[in-house]
Amino acid sequence: MNMANITKKVSWSSRGDDSARGEATPLLNGTEEVRYTRQPSGGLFHISRLSTVDLEEEITSEEDSVRTRPNMIPHNEKLLSLKYESLDYDNIENQLFLEEERRMSHMGFRCLEISRWVICGLIGFLTGLIACFIDIVVEKLAGIKYIVVKQNIEKFTEVGGLSISLILWAVLNSSLVMVGAIIVAFFEPIAAGSGIPQIKCYLNGVKIPRVVRLKTLMVKVFGVICSVAGGLAVGKEGPMIHSGAVVAAGVSQGRSTSLKKDFKIFEYFRRDTEKRDFVSAGAAAGVSAAFGAPVGGVLFSLEEGASFWNQMLTWRIFFASMISTFTLNFFLSIYNNKTGDLSNPGLINFGRFDSDSVAYNLYEIPLFIIMGAIGGLLGALFNFLNYWLTIFRIRYVHRPCLQVIEAMLVAAVTATVSFTMIYFSNDCQPLGQDQTKDDYPLQLFCADGEYNSMATAFFNTPERSVRSLFHNPPGSYNPLTLGLFTLTYFFLACWTYGLTVSAGVFIPSLLIGAAWGRLFGILLSYFTSGSSQIWADPGKYALIGAAAQLGGIVRMTLSLTVIMVEATGNVTFGLPIMLVLMTAKIVGDYFAEGLYDIHIKLQSVPFLHYEAPATSHWLTAREVMSSPVTCFNKVEKVGTIVNTLSNTSTNHNGFPVVIQIPDSDEPGMVCGLILRSQLIVLLKHKVFVERARTRLSQRKLQLKDFRDAYPRFPPIQSIHVSQDERECMMDLSEFMNPTPYTVPQETSLPRVFKLFRALGLRHLLVVDSENRVVGLVTRKDLARYHMGKHGLEELQLAQT
Amino acid sequence: MNMANITKKVSWSSRGDDSARGEATPLLNGTEEVRYTRQPSGGLFHISRLSTVDLEEEITSEEDSVRTRPNMIPHNEKLLSLKYESLDYDNIENQLFLEEERRMSHMGFRCLEISRWVICGLIGFLTGLIACFIDIVVEKLAGIKYIVVKQNIEKFTEVGGLSISLILWAVLNSSLVMVGAIIVAFFEPIAAGSGIPQIKCYLNGVKIPRVVRLKTLMVKVFGVICSVAGGLAVGKEGPMIHSGAVVAAGVSQGRSTSLKKDFKIFEYFRRDTEKRDFVSAGAAAGVSAAFGAPVGGVLFSLEEGASFWNQMLTWRIFFASMISTFTLNFFLSIYNNKTGDLSNPGLINFGRFDSDSVAYNLYEIPLFIIMGAIGGLLGALFNFLNYWLTIFRIRYVHRPCLQVIEAMLVAAVTATVSFTMIYFSNDCQPLGQDQTKDDYPLQLFCADGEYNSMATAFFNTPERSVRSLFHNPPGSYNPLTLGLFTLTYFFLACWTYGLTVSAGVFIPSLLIGAAWGRLFGILLSYFTSGSSQIWADPGKYALIGAAAQLGGIVRMTLSLTVIMVEATGNVTFGLPIMLVLMTAKIVGDYFAEGLYDIHIKLQSVPFLHYEAPATSHWLTAREVMSSPVTCFNKVEKVGTIVNTLSNTSTNHNGFPVVIQIPDSDEPGMVCGLILRSQLIVLLKHKVFVERARTRLSQRKLQLKDFRDAYPRFPPIQSIHVSQDERECMMDLSEFMNPTPYTVPQETSLPRVFKLFRALGLRHLLVVDSENRVVGLVTRKDLARYHMGKHGLEELQLAQT
Repeated sequence: MNMANITKKVSWSSRGDDSARGEATPLLNGTEEVRYTRQPSGGLFHISRLSTVDLEEEITSEEDSVRTRPNMIPHNEKLLSLKYESLDYDNIENQLFLEEERRMSHMGFRCLEISRWVICGLIGFLTGLIACFIDIVVEKLAGIKYIVVKQNIEKFTEVGGLSISLILWAVLNSSLVMVGAIIVAFFEPIAAGSGIPQIKCYLNGVKIPRVVRLKTLMVKVFGVICSVAGGLAVGKEGPMIHSGAVVAAGVSQGRSTSLKKDFKIFEYFRRDTEKRDFVSAGAAAGVSAAFGAPVGGVLFSLEEGASFWNQMLTWRIFFASMISTFTLNFFLSIYNNKTGDLSNPGLINFGRFDSDSVAYNLYEIPLFIIMGAIGGLLGALFNFLNYWLTIFRIRYVHRPCLQVIEAMLVAAVTATVSFTMIYFSNDCQPLGQDQTKDDYPLQLFCADGEYNSMATAFFNTPERSVRSLFHNPPGSYNPLTLGLFTLTYFFLACWTYGLTVSAGVFIPSLLIGAAWGRLFGILLSYFTSGSSQIWADPGKYALIGAAAQLGGIVRMTLSLTVIMVEATGNVTFGLPIMLVLMTAKIVGDYFAEGLYDIHIKLQSVPFLHYEAPATSHWLTAREVMSSPVTCFNKVEKVGTIVNTLSNTSTNHNGFPVVIQIPDSDEPGMVCGLILRSQLIVLLKHKVFVERARTRLSQRKLQLKDFRDAYPRFPPIQSIHVSQDERECMMDLSEFMNPTPYTVPQETSLPRVFKLFRALGLRHLLVVDSENRVVGLVTRKDLARYHMGKHGLEELQLAQT
Repeated sequence: MNMANITKKVSWSSRGDDSARGEATPLLNGTEEVRYTRQPSGGLFHISRLSTVDLEEEITSEEDSVRTRPNMIPHNEKLLSLKYESLDYDNIENQLFLEEERRMSHMGFRCLEISRWVICGLIGFLTGLIACFIDIVVEKLAGIKYIVVKQNIEKFTEVGGLSISLILWAVLNSSLVMVGAIIVAFFEPIAAGSGIPQIKCYLNGVKIPRVVRLKTLMVKVFGVICSVAGGLAVGKEGPMIHSGAVVAAGVSQGRSTSLKKDFKIFEYFRRDTEKRDFVSAGAAAGVSAAFGAPVGGVLFSLEEGASFWNQMLTWRIFFASMISTFTLNFFLSIYNNKTGDLSNPGLINFGRFDSDSVAYNLYEIPLFIIMGAIGGLLGALFNFLNYWLTIFRIRYVHRPCLQVIEAMLVAAVTATVSFTMIYFSNDCQPLGQDQTKDDYPLQLFCADGEYNSMATAFFNTPERSVRSLFHNPPGSYNPLTLGLFTLTYFFLACWTYGLTVSAGVFIPSLLIGAAWGRLFGILLSYFTSGSSQIWADPGKYALIGAAAQLGGIVRMTLSLTVIMVEATGNVTFGLPIMLVLMTAKIVGDYFAEGLYDIHIKLQSVPFLHYEAPATSHWLTAREVMSSPVTCFNKVEKVGTIVNTLSNTSTNHNGFPVVIQIPDSDEPGMVCGLILRSQLIVLLKHKVFVERARTRLSQRKLQLKDFRDAYPRFPPIQSIHVSQDERECMMDLSEFMNPTPYTVPQETSLPRVFKLFRALGLRHLLVVDSENRVVGLVTRKDLARYHMGKHGLEELQLAQT
């Protein structure tokens, strides 16, 4: 293959602009690193090569066919989308960067380190404040709603006509949810859901458009308030993780692009590497605020994001987490008139589990494992149902107004079902002394001094219901109530997750699990009545059930264990919780994937796991890479660069810079790598030299120019290059990364994968034995391979 | 430079054999990857280039001068020893390995995964058992000792002649310590101390000779029992970490080389990569057993060892930790006749801190920070004193018998000082009801029904003393007692650490800190008497003081916070403990390094930190690398290989395999990398081909042959190669790693460092633009650069 071939034989794709959104405008969606005239690689194993074939056909066809394509490709977990760009965790160590680093004194580095700590402190503080705000507003709103409905119910219980109460309840819920759904559906669809899958992707290195913007944060916060206060089967915890991440991305950059305000601080941190570190801290702070689990937060960030563990970074993340819980705690203690009492962390508070009252014993461990298996089964069922529901939604409920209507419908149905359950329940319990002022016991048809037990589960915020299930004394619920509650809430929660409202799935999962766990405990104590006092506490089983159900749905491992342990405030339950989560994961994985993974796959995100599939040693870089590669010379003609960048069918984001061997058709030797974004900045500032090598631009380009443009680089179309300028040359040597990582062609896929993942790369060059570029490996080339039911499978690629 | 030059111009060094020990036999000590004819690199910055100069002189001199050298170079933290080999965290993906991986089915990989879990479970179980054994034996021995002494004291208190009791106590202590010191000094010196520095080094990737052997474990276990029962100011917690690591290294290999027993299982795991993962799990299990802190254990392993975070690995490590605490718990519960009560984890048990009784308040946080600063100062003082003591010991107390005598002396002095302090103390406290059966209250000269308060601190195992300081009710100690105790124990502990006994520094640090912390609390309550009830609990301040002191001495961060939080069983204290540890670290680092780091530096271990020094962007691979490099051809003459390996002055451990360009003097193009150990196995099995390429060896060499030889490869001298055989050729292509990682010469040091550290490499090839080998980077080339007081400094290299 000759050089002309390499620069010209490029594949189709659409332009990269991450401000465009959704599938309605496919041509505006960013794609990257697409080079799809793949070399024939032989049929070593059973892999569908449909994508490649499709793509090669596409090259000959017109752009119009590309335009119509997206509608034909439904969201599908067997596809990998090309619309997502990657974050680059590898510093671009070009001459400018090295000069800056070399100029910096030891003191300078120390100041940077201190700024990092300050930023982490700020992240923690702001995240804590947001959590505090959400908590207080939700409590207030829900309080008003429940009091109004309760008074109405009490009024109508005697005289009849409770249907009016039902309608009141349903209307209140629907209108709150409507507001929440409208802001999400019309203003910022990315704020829908818990945001955890999106943050997982971000930390994994995928640039999800608009995910860490200020507007997203606003919509998220108000959306979650509306949906929780609107009585949906959702929690306010998941969204905290997303909120923390947005706060981090904003604070660390020292400016807001949305508000057009640049504080001229923290400019050093305006690159992917640093930003991603801060976003890790933000996500951890979010977990910490949500669950009062600073260590859990750190582990969450590490589990999802860490490619390379760094002690100081982790320590800073921990600091952000600590500050976040502390802030939340402190302000809530003021709000609750117990200023300075800091011993009650987290938005969700499981209440105190004292070791003495709920000690477990060796012979209970098999029971816990059985509960784990049940949790895994129920979780898989939940995920399976939700999967089909999501497919349905993607196909039929994709217009914003339809989405709002669905959300309102779910809100109304939730209210109706709850009301019906409460109405027909005849589980009356004596009104104890331990009801706090914020509980809303419903008397309904119970005798005076008694309350309706079903109502403690349904007529309450889910957080309170969980706490009641954990701590109410034995006998507070009868088994039928719990059974019915589990059943209805399971389906409600399943229906709710994936609605166009911002809300989390943690609390509903815990609630379902706590309900059946408590039921399990009660049944146990029936069967073993009187034999041992230790069975007496169903609250312990509620806790284990909650862990099992949550584990079965989300399939997180270490971080979830620690979060649960921290939320219970009791270290002794570590082992049972761990065993339960392990069992739930193993059983669940057998039937269906975790909920977040399902949603990530349905978005066709090129997500990289920790390791390459076990049986992928067959594959080498040669088969995996995309080739041929569009390369530039060290001093390249401006016209060539503009043409390459403008060509919508060659939307590459990284270009090897090569030294061409004179009078040779062979590919050039690698001498660097330059990114599209860098070239765009160069073109914008017209850093051209004439053929005679006199510099045309007056000013020497500095790192600052690149940082100012980060992260929203203008599209190539917005840059005007005159015909004269096109004839100039551009000297890339100062700006390219002169030492990109390379691998030989024979490197096995696991080895390529390890290098790529451990260093968080975006582009990895494949070279031959004489250091000539023969291909390029990007995220999608690696993410395509995964373990399917029939061994190694290759995903297709789609540009939606 | 021509090729002849490259293979011949090699530098001096001594042979690699890790079974040799100590500084007495320098020529037998392993060195590796030494290539010291460094290219001139210009004086870019202020670096002492003494080493290079020394080494270049050395080349011309005779071997005898090398022999005499070690005695002239004292242990010094400005040196980097060449005697340590590296672990290779990078799989050797040669043809044999890839063939095996490709043969393996998906089911095979699943079985491997299951074995990994089983091994981790076993590691946890055995570590827990060992902890249980140590705990019970120590309690029994110490119990007998204290009862004997107590009876003796009671007998002589009335009649006078307490000096006899003193002698009895001192003799008992000294004889126990003597036994402990003898087994350590004469049988296995590596078992001295806590073992934490050694395990830190191992997890960092340095192969410390003999550190994970069965004999070491034995000596460690019995040594720690003797030293703790012998009343030294030491704890039994640190050695648990080492013990766990040894268990892991043993179990995971499915054989014991010492016992010459091969179970023929887990053969797949016989390589550095896998072994190191298991050792991480073992260390975590050790921490977990010692402190009842499974999460802390995981974080310890990650903080010290992780180069690349892997979710499943972490999850397995956590499993081992959990099993370990669980086992310890379960067996201790049986021993304590409370079978099945599992809520009391860990060797050290801080006792319950209830949130209600010891809540902290916002305005206490500045006080905590002040305590952190005090801890940092005292810690720095401790480390500084211990540093000089260690230097002294290295110079003058290096004979085993002297070491035993010193240990006995310390034991006797400890007993005498304790006795004197108790004797002259007149702090009598009323005997409460809360004394457990295992406490040994001394009445001495107190009235009936009272006990000597100083004795609760001195006349007890340190663990119990810590617990008393945390939990005894306010007023149990008077300030003078605490002050004197802090003072004496501080110096005793400082003298004790570094003795030739196996023992840890955690508990003495905690004890010192708890004593002055409690003192601090008491003084506070004097000054603020009556103003607030919250100051009343000095136990809280004892806890904070303990954290501050421990943090000031060992300077661990995240993991220590989590360990402390888990050991107190109370999540609420997370923030204050974290703040205290942070302050202690910042203040302490200003004056002196952490204790473990000091000892690592004094051993001149090439330890790699997380990142290259901040101001090292000046340096590039060209300056850092060692060159020229000894290379082999793909098909190499056996004689050449034998000569290269045998040459004690070219003791390289990794050799690039190159393709020589015919009729060219230039260095060859990289096509692989082969290790000394692989060549030795090849020579041993005589995998030779005659010139005509007919294979001489009957059997095809398999991976199994390499695994059987791992990790104690025979020295080259033990392999006989006849003169005929020397004329044969050896085909390396099947055995070499065909895809070693390479970097261009212009790569900056931080970039090289990141690649090296993130992937846990042992050798990194430096190539020119045409992929020809120009140098080789190893651990020592990177570890040499560090931040000193005057900016970047370069350590000298020594072969001791």
